[in-house]
Amino acid sequence: MSLPDGFYVRRVEEKDFEQVTETLKVLTTVGAIAPESFSKLLKHWNEATVWDEDNSKRIMQYNPIVIMDKRTETIAATGNIFIERKIIHELGLCGHIEDIAVNSNYQGQGLGKLLIDQLVAIGFGYGCYKIILDCDEKNVNFYKKCGFSNAGVEMQIRK
Amino acid sequence: MSLPDGFYVRRVEEKDFEQVTETLKVLTTVGAIAPESFSKLLKHWNEATVWDEDNSKRIMQYNPIVIMDKRTETIAATGNIFIERKIIHELGLCGHIEDIAVNSNYQGQGLGKLLIDQLVAIGFGYGCYKIILDCDEKNVNFYKKCGFSNAGVEMQIRK
Ligand SMILES: CC(=O)N[C@@H]1[C@@H](O)[C@H](O)[C@@H](COP(=O)(O)O)O[C@@H]1O
Ligand SMILES: CC(=O)N[C@@H]1[C@@H](O)[C@H](O)[C@@H](COP(=O)(O)O)O[C@@H]1O
Repeated sequence: MSLPDGFYVRRVEEKDFEQVTETLKVLTTVGAIAPESFSKLLKHWNEATVWDEDNSKRIMQYNPIVIMDKRTETIAATGNIFIERKIIHELGLCGHIEDIAVNSNYQGQGLGKLLIDQLVAIGFGYGCYKIILDCDEKNVNFYKKCGFSNAGVEMQIRK
Repeated sequence: MSLPDGFYVRRVEEKDFEQVTETLKVLTTVGAIAPESFSKLLKHWNEATVWDEDNSKRIMQYNPIVIMDKRTETIAATGNIFIERKIIHELGLCGHIEDIAVNSNYQGQGLGKLLIDQLVAIGFGYGCYKIILDCDEKNVNFYKKCGFSNAGVEMQIRK
């Protein structure tokens, strides 16, 4: 599925600082972040790669993307796929979809599904044997529409 | 809680190739892995670090450990905690506990809980605001005994 007219996708950049942090507030606590710290984080995200035996492709550890509204240069949605190199499945790759947020002014236009499609394409492009994510019970049907199925229970421990 | 006499914990090493791959078979498909490929994987795991603004500690991206039976140098259990640097929670760290396997000859001795305790200590030592894992419904009670609680639903998509 391709993006509707008027939108494009790209990797997160330094200039996205304010809009990305604002957009993520629909998901959870963001807290106070200095712009310089955000730039350092992006530098880390842009440098971290995952080992690939064939050396045939550059696998980025973090793949933060935004869907942009071309006309106004507004971030409509953001998300990431974080890549893990395992022993199991013949030194397989597992993709973790994380921190999905759709700007409330852009909800209900199918952009969430397009965002997930893009992240899934990145993960399968790298050769992931599976892509997983954790969500609230209330979002299960949305992820089923994106081609996902129930896999297990997420457990957590917090400080 | 500390380990019972006769056991110790350490990071996975090259010489663990056969025993680690064997132990992981209780969890899932491991497949055919060449020893040289395993060594390259460990090199990657030993070099990958996670950015830390204070530069006060070296945060390892992957933290594969084994619980060893001292007497026989047998791997009793293995697991990993994989560290993710996020934007949310003030550029917070999230720990992902992965690939937990207890050797069938060592089950029922409380080593699984000790393994999880060790991995949780590593994650909180780095400053993770939360540590998560995905498991089968049948393992929920075990993880509750380890201090975890239900957080959400794991969804997956496979190639
Ligand atoms: C698919 C998706 O976007 N899942 C997110 C996860 O990536 C994020 O880290 C978490 C934040 O919640 P927290 O503030 O409780 O850690 O919420 C959701 O589970
Ligand atoms: C806490 C724990 O150990 N969870 C593991 C997960 O780390 C592993 O990657 C997966 C393998 O299953 P798969 O072969 O279906 O990917 O099994 C379990 O969910």
